[in-house]
Parts: sequence; C-alpha cells; structure tokens
Amino acid sequence: MTLKLYTLRIADGREPSPFVWRARMALAHKGLAVERVPIGYGEKHKLAFSGQGLVPVLVDGERWVNDSWAIAQYLEDTYPDRPTLFGGAKGRAMALFINRWADVETLGALRLLLWPATWDHIPAADQAYFRADRETKAGMTLEAMRAEPEAKIAAFRRVLEPARQTLARQPYLCGDKPGYADYCLFGGFMWGKTVSPHRLLAADDPIHRWRAELLAAFDGMAAADPGYPVD
Amino acid sequence: MTLKLYTLRIADGREPSPFVWRARMALAHKGLAVERVPIGYGEKHKLAFSGQGLVPVLVDGERWVNDSWAIAQYLEDTYPDRPTLFGGAKGRAMALFINRWADVETLGALRLLLWPATWDHIPAADQAYFRADRETKAGMTLEAMRAEPEAKIAAFRRVLEPARQTLARQPYLCGDKPGYADYCLFGGFMWGKTVSPHRLLAADDPIHRWRAELLAAFDGMAAADPGYPVD
Repeated sequence: MTLKLYTLRIADGREPSPFVWRARMALAHKGLAVERVPIGYGEKHKLAFSGQGLVPVLVDGERWVNDSWAIAQYLEDTYPDRPTLFGGAKGRAMALFINRWADVETLGALRLLLWPATWDHIPAADQAYFRADRETKAGMTLEAMRAEPEAKIAAFRRVLEPARQTLARQPYLCGDKPGYADYCLFGGFMWGKTVSPHRLLAADDPIHRWRAELLAAFDGMAAADPGYPVD
Repeated sequence: MTLKLYTLRIADGREPSPFVWRARMALAHKGLAVERVPIGYGEKHKLAFSGQGLVPVLVDGERWVNDSWAIAQYLEDTYPDRPTLFGGAKGRAMALFINRWADVETLGALRLLLWPATWDHIPAADQAYFRADRETKAGMTLEAMRAEPEAKIAAFRRVLEPARQTLARQPYLCGDKPGYADYCLFGGFMWGKTVSPHRLLAADDPIHRWRAELLAAFDGMAAADPGYPVD
C-alpha cells in the first residue's frame, strides 16, 4: 500500500509549505515511497476526512495523520526498523525543542518576507483569501510587508546563529547524518526556494554548506522541486 | 580519586557562573561526587595548569578538562555506565544546538540584567576589573545596564518561547527525565538566582514548573546554594 501525502500546491507545481517539506524529507529519510496528492488553498474540503484543513496529511492505508510533528512520530513508531529520525527518546524530545525553535524563530522571521512572495505565485482565485488571512495575521498589507527585504533577511540570519555555531562544528544538527531536527529547519529554506529569489544565506555561512547537502540528499529531491535557483 | 571542579565564587559563597552550573548539574546527573575548588575573579592564575583562565575546569586524577561542553563530553565518554546526559549520538548532536541556543539567546538576553547584579555581589577588590571588562563588552556603563529591568526580563521571557512550548508538552527538554540540554538552559536561571532578586518567570509559565523540579533535583542541590529565593 503506497503512502499518500496531501500537500499544498500553488502555481507552476510549486509546493511552498515548510511543514509539508518536513514530512517529505522525513518520508525520504525512512526510504518510504509516497504518492503526493496536491491541493490548492481553495480545496481544503479535500482534507475533511482528517477533521481539519491543514496540510500535510499522511494517509497510510486506513489510517491518517495530520500535523508535521505527529507525522514524524507516526513514521518513527510505525517504521522503527528504517533509519531513525530521532535516535531514541531523548533525541525525540530534543527534536521537539528544535522544531518549536524553527517555528517560532526562523519561520517567524521569514513570514513577512515570504508571504508576499507566496502571494506572487498563487492562482488568482486564491489570492483574495490569502491576502485577507495573512494581512490579518501580520497586521499590515502585503505591500507593507514588501518593505526592506534586506532588513528581514538580516533578521532571519541573526536568529540562525545557534544553528550556525552548531553547523560550524558538526555536519548536521543531528550529528554526522541528518535527522528530523535538520528537516525542521530545512523546511523554511524550501519555502524560500519555492517562492522567493532572495538570497537567504551568505556563501560562507556554515548553514549554506548544510543546506546544499540537504538539497542534494535523496537523489536531489529538494533541489529538483520547482522553485528559484539557490546559490 | 575524588573529582575536583574549579568554580567561580563571589561574596557570601555565591557561585554565579551559568557554565559552572551546567558542569555541577552534569556531575550530579552522573552521580559523581566532586570537590569544588572555588576561586575569585582575581585568582585566574590558579587555572594556569589548564592553559586558560575560565571556569569550570574539571580535574579527574591526572587529567583536566576545561569548557562546560567539553566537560559534559568527558563525563559521558568516561562514565558511560552512569545515567546518560545525551541519549546517544543524535541526542548529543542536538544537545550542542540547544547549548548554543541557550548561550546566544538566553544568556544574551540576561547579561545586561545580570552583569550589574553580579557586580553588586563581588568583592571590592574585583569590582574594577569586572566593571571594565563588562562595560567594554556591553558598550555601556553598569549604571546604564540597570535601566528598565522589566523590559530586559520581558525580552528574556520572549526568547524562551521555544522552551515554553516544549515544556508545555513534556516534562523536560530531554523528555521524561532531565538531560544535559536541560542543564544548559538551567544554568542561566542559576546565574539569576545567585545574584538577582528579579522575578525571571511568571508563576504560570511552564518553564516555572520545570525550573522548580531542577532546583529540587539531586536532593535540592541547586535550591540550597547561596542566592535569592526563587518564586
């Protein structure tokens, strides 16, 4: 039985959700084939079976799981003989912290930069919804969010400092090999690659090297996905 | 052979170093008895054997280790049959990230609040050195640092958000039991307890519950150390 993953797809095959990217990387890490079921912003009714309206949703035979963190737990617990995402109970617990750090700090720093960029790549039919929702969340218009992108990039680079110091000392956040904590951070970079031509990292940043390795991982799965060139 | 740990001691037996606290908690976690060798700011020559001037320095027979992270590695590798600090290779790698996060974000947010408070509790003979060093690092006088403590506490509470969300879902950053990542964050709170009467956490903060448990851990070792009451 092939796994199915509901994903968000916007124009030109782009899949911007950082949470979907966490799930896609986790599935690839486990070596699990998955059939993606892309939906648009206006098709949340297709997720009604899951009792909520957000991607990713994983369907495994008769079972389904929503929420990227819950999906990672499900994969680790259901496929324990495949490569581990967490490396045991303590690792799983610490990965939750890194997940929340990535949410609060890195996605928090990216959203004013990437919401307008996302809007630029969504079908016209979904733009009114997206504009209203994100402008309410941000407390400003999409046009206001476009101001000073370089300052937003600088703020993003600043919150990355703990990851930078870590990746200067070891290949991945999870050590010699990547793990779920790496994918939590990587999801934000994939959101950026998918919708924005901005350069999020300087070439000499240790995180740049790490990102390049994750773009190339799993036969270049992330690098090959529709989006802007990353340099 | 009893282990020895060089620590920083200021007035009234207070030991403010967050890095020493990481090492003390790690030693207690491993169930290792340790003899503390307290030194003052003016006694760095007593660390000359280690080729540098910062505490903590651990001495184990003929060997010595400086730097709190290196000490944690040493304890885990040298005493593998005692309770683990990291829970394996992936956990160790993720703990480095949390260590750096605690350094950059939490100690970064605390230093302007706690440097003047530390100065208030150091022997007069060391005050000139401390003032010059910290004022250079901060780019302002100790008196300027004392401005708006409530704003500094608010900034500290804000950077704790990833830990708050994590500790709302699980007992410790390392899961059901504390581990080294917990001690990395806890060290900053012990710096606060040692020198400052300020209330760093609201009573309904999930981190407050976690801190209380670590204060009580190891027969109340941290709670019993000289400092201000924590509420």
